[in-house]
Amino acid sequence: MGKPSTYEIVPDGGVTLPQGFKAGGLHCGLKKTDRHDLGVIWCETEASAAAVYTTNQFQAAPLAVTKESLAVSRGTLRAVIVNSGNANACTGRQGELDALEMRSRLADQLGVPHHHVAVASTGVIGELLKMDRVREGIDRLPGRLRSDAQGSDDFCQAILTTDLVKKTSCVRLHVDGRTVTVAGAAKGSGMIHPNMATMLGFVTTDAAIGPELLHELLREVTDVTFNMITVDGDTSTNDMLVAMASGLAGHRPLTREHPDYPAFADAFRHVCTELAKAIARDGEGATKLIETRVAGAASDDAARAIAKTIVGSSLVKSAVFGADANWGRIIAAVGRAGQPVNVSTVDIRIGDIVVLEQSRPIPFDEDAALEYLKGDTVVIRVDLHMGEGRAIAWGCDLTYDYVRINAAYRT
Amino acid sequence: MGKPSTYEIVPDGGVTLPQGFKAGGLHCGLKKTDRHDLGVIWCETEASAAAVYTTNQFQAAPLAVTKESLAVSRGTLRAVIVNSGNANACTGRQGELDALEMRSRLADQLGVPHHHVAVASTGVIGELLKMDRVREGIDRLPGRLRSDAQGSDDFCQAILTTDLVKKTSCVRLHVDGRTVTVAGAAKGSGMIHPNMATMLGFVTTDAAIGPELLHELLREVTDVTFNMITVDGDTSTNDMLVAMASGLAGHRPLTREHPDYPAFADAFRHVCTELAKAIARDGEGATKLIETRVAGAASDDAARAIAKTIVGSSLVKSAVFGADANWGRIIAAVGRAGQPVNVSTVDIRIGDIVVLEQSRPIPFDEDAALEYLKGDTVVIRVDLHMGEGRAIAWGCDLTYDYVRINAAYRT
Repeated sequence: MGKPSTYEIVPDGGVTLPQGFKAGGLHCGLKKTDRHDLGVIWCETEASAAAVYTTNQFQAAPLAVTKESLAVSRGTLRAVIVNSGNANACTGRQGELDALEMRSRLADQLGVPHHHVAVASTGVIGELLKMDRVREGIDRLPGRLRSDAQGSDDFCQAILTTDLVKKTSCVRLHVDGRTVTVAGAAKGSGMIHPNMATMLGFVTTDAAIGPELLHELLREVTDVTFNMITVDGDTSTNDMLVAMASGLAGHRPLTREHPDYPAFADAFRHVCTELAKAIARDGEGATKLIETRVAGAASDDAARAIAKTIVGSSLVKSAVFGADANWGRIIAAVGRAGQPVNVSTVDIRIGDIVVLEQSRPIPFDEDAALEYLKGDTVVIRVDLHMGEGRAIAWGCDLTYDYVRINAAYRT
Repeated sequence: MGKPSTYEIVPDGGVTLPQGFKAGGLHCGLKKTDRHDLGVIWCETEASAAAVYTTNQFQAAPLAVTKESLAVSRGTLRAVIVNSGNANACTGRQGELDALEMRSRLADQLGVPHHHVAVASTGVIGELLKMDRVREGIDRLPGRLRSDAQGSDDFCQAILTTDLVKKTSCVRLHVDGRTVTVAGAAKGSGMIHPNMATMLGFVTTDAAIGPELLHELLREVTDVTFNMITVDGDTSTNDMLVAMASGLAGHRPLTREHPDYPAFADAFRHVCTELAKAIARDGEGATKLIETRVAGAASDDAARAIAKTIVGSSLVKSAVFGADANWGRIIAAVGRAGQPVNVSTVDIRIGDIVVLEQSRPIPFDEDAALEYLKGDTVVIRVDLHMGEGRAIAWGCDLTYDYVRINAAYRT
């Protein structure tokens, strides 16, 4: 932030661009439409791997299986398999057996150890997977693996549920003078909230980095990216973010002391930030991305809590949908976030329009505000003038379509 | 709960029914419509009084004035004045002066000490009151005081904002063989969440009870009634619940040891429960009341948190609007409430229909569930089978109209 970026954005890049990766997807019959619902990412090397998971106490079966894979393989993966249309959550012992079978069947098809495969699922909760369809799909998956953009594209489509658009991000940078690529794919649209809510994310890179450092980086970056988005305050049972590093870029392995590590961490964060924003913007029914920037808070944690409270407020979200510069709802959200606030020193800007200064309303051009709020990105800035804490959170507006989608999702 | 009730419901009773009270309301011009926007409750005696307030750090000017009144008068009030259409919140020093002037002008009109008047406001945040209209209205208020149902009705109308219906409740009981009446009026529809969110409540009674005990009772009852409702998770800057006791019923003053105190506390709680449920049912855009009953939790506090998380979930609320028995969203809410849960012992019932037993989905009659969910009250029961903790929370469904109302409230 603020520094010149040391990476270059690759507009059309996807998870298959880093060296060593192939991906694919197909329709096996879990979705009612004919869209893809089964996808795979495969790595030709034993990739360093790490994952973070939902904080919901009811964790779906695939999460337990993935945790076990990474524990037994000590942070090594050859593949990850994902299905959409069914979350395999609250499915009891049979659900666990089904997730285990997804792992073993794909591993056997690919000729890799079972524990080198991770499993992820997203969709309806509480229904058993139609395993006959899944089995048939898995048997066809290896034939769908491609190292080109089509492979990435097929995979991206296979992980979508109520998402409207595929979400990818890709950057390139240099490490020891060698080109390193970092790419990501994600899904998530409803049930998006701090702490990994119905969101699946996959990051591939050809960097050489050990699983411990990759895990640390993944956690640090998740805290300021995926955990700073909210669509509706719900936290899903299934969320998972998996990173795989093939190590094929040919540089000295990254450590915290490596001179190019900060550049790599920046690039990694860029990919995750773009995926997180894409998820927020594609929130169920959303028409706009809302970005909340809080500065001057007592601590970064306080700033984070306030930024998320604002962007999660149904009243703020409805007002943004209605292009209403209703800063009263913003300050009400600041006041209930449970964080230290000096009630007489708060500034609020909507875009570049100052609406509150030192907690006093400032007359502003309502037409200009309306025009700004009609745009597809709305930035709300709050400065508390208390300390150095700052944070950015992302969300979306609350619309008729959110209600329509969620009133009839299961049936 | 479970015991036979020791009070009798008075279907048409209002805040003027307890002995010693008059009320009234009129239109002074704060609302754009011609509906009442200024109201008053007056007591012929120096009523014992107590109040509880929003937890939002940005508290509106009238709350500070009311707190000061009750502090200086040591829990004694003769009147409370309320305006709707403007919250007098985030209005700085001028807002404080305006709230003070509302108090002093009404006190002078009624010939009572300034500190015997409480002030409440509700409506738009951040705009100064049109005090010329308020002054003119206050001068007409004493002439509108009535001791009959019309007085209560005028008052109830004067406190509404986006509410669709007036909210009152009234019960009668016997204390020392004398008839005691407890009545209440309330408003609130958006920004309703735990901890007194845009909600105003007023309880009148002719019981004899000191201000300290009245305050304790008010706090205890608020915790299990008004603080257990949620409409949209937002907490307003203006919420306040005021209780006034005229003491005219003629019984020995109530203490915790008085044999009829439990009956009085039950009656008081009934009135507050009915008002809280009426607020939830009339949530902005709502078509249904949702009641969540949690049992078997580790503690009452844990049950409270879980009940509120379920009833506050946008996904659960949307599903209820769509009459969709989507219990997956209910269990996801249980799992993210941050409370101890045994993930394999959870039962869920929607109405009388068992949908989850010992955390396993139970096949159920979808048509019967659809029929039940189409009703105007939906009860969701969760039993965690962990301990003795239990709680009830209330909320409403999330509808297209919630979005419509809040996308265009200010403009």
